[in-house]
Amino acid sequence: MKAAHTTRRRGDHRTRVGRERSARTETRILEAALGVFANMGPDAPKIDDFVQAAGISRGTFYNHFESVEELLIATSEWTTRETIESIDAALEGLEGPALRLGVGLRLFFAKAQSDPVWCRFVARVWKIGGDELPTRDVADGLRNGVFRAPSAEVARDLLFGAIRQALLHIGSGKAASNYGTQMTELYLQALGTDARRISAAMKHELPLEEEEKETSS
Amino acid sequence: MKAAHTTRRRGDHRTRVGRERSARTETRILEAALGVFANMGPDAPKIDDFVQAAGISRGTFYNHFESVEELLIATSEWTTRETIESIDAALEGLEGPALRLGVGLRLFFAKAQSDPVWCRFVARVWKIGGDELPTRDVADGLRNGVFRAPSAEVARDLLFGAIRQALLHIGSGKAASNYGTQMTELYLQALGTDARRISAAMKHELPLEEEEKETSS
Repeated sequence: MKAAHTTRRRGDHRTRVGRERSARTETRILEAALGVFANMGPDAPKIDDFVQAAGISRGTFYNHFESVEELLIATSEWTTRETIESIDAALEGLEGPALRLGVGLRLFFAKAQSDPVWCRFVARVWKIGGDELPTRDVADGLRNGVFRAPSAEVARDLLFGAIRQALLHIGSGKAASNYGTQMTELYLQALGTDARRISAAMKHELPLEEEEKETSS
Repeated sequence: MKAAHTTRRRGDHRTRVGRERSARTETRILEAALGVFANMGPDAPKIDDFVQAAGISRGTFYNHFESVEELLIATSEWTTRETIESIDAALEGLEGPALRLGVGLRLFFAKAQSDPVWCRFVARVWKIGGDELPTRDVADGLRNGVFRAPSAEVARDLLFGAIRQALLHIGSGKAASNYGTQMTELYLQALGTDARRISAAMKHELPLEEEEKETSS
């Protein structure tokens, strides 16, 4: 795991051990924050909710984050960037925007279905990191004619609207097990993807999944 | 305007004048709440924020609503139901799910573009009333083969995901003037609507608009 905030704020006088301890504390705060925001939403929690959930002092909290708002943004960007980048790595070698986007979305929804807390958190807070990766596949497809849409802007907004609504549905625990695959198929259809490419993206065996990666790292 | 909450709570001993005054107060609270929630989000506001914005006493507030949460739900459902029902009325006589859904969405996005406070409120709070009306058009189209989708569930979720993300974009003030039309076109394409029907829905002159209706009532 990375802790971008830590690197930015540490001076050279700190020892490597100190920096590592600090990065672990920051990760601990981010992980606790994920649960707090998922349960209470983005606006209601106070500093003490995070202090209690992470088992740290207020002083330690302020060493890492200035406010709940800063923590909110950091937590959201951290967790979605991690997920999207790991999916992007899993897609290495896959050719063509329809296949990449289709398999990538299926992996993303599989992660959501395996982790309801994460799912509700992302849906509620909705400040995402790493969104340039799927956006690039959409733009590539529009440029080379694999996709068609009235504008790149609405194609991108429909993608993130679909993802958010799907996460709300999956997070409610009421989605069927093939829900993520169906939403992926519908989004590819939205971009006017031809039937053969949609079918290839639906049938492609999913590369190394999220959960396995985390365990093996 | 209706005040569903009022009817439910009044006894027969109240005079008509008293009921009308009470309904006006409730509408005043709902209208004030719209601005408060739009600015502060769904979780942060306290009773006093609404009391101050509506220019009423705390006692009057509690005559109408038990909590911020109850007011939040009432406000969201009230404002979206009003809008969707007025659009539904404007669609009277239009035949076919593609034409009805296309023109209806264009009207909805036109309302959003004309009223940024409303737009941000709906996007942030996201508890909507009247959603059975567009859902019915989607279901009709799927049943008679005008639309196609892997399931009615994902078709519905893509619709509301598209609407919410579009409202966030329009509410930011950065959307082009034809943004709502483009999103409508993309959603019809998502449902596999044939090009002739999409074109008819795009070219159809918009019936009596939201703004005009409000002024004339």
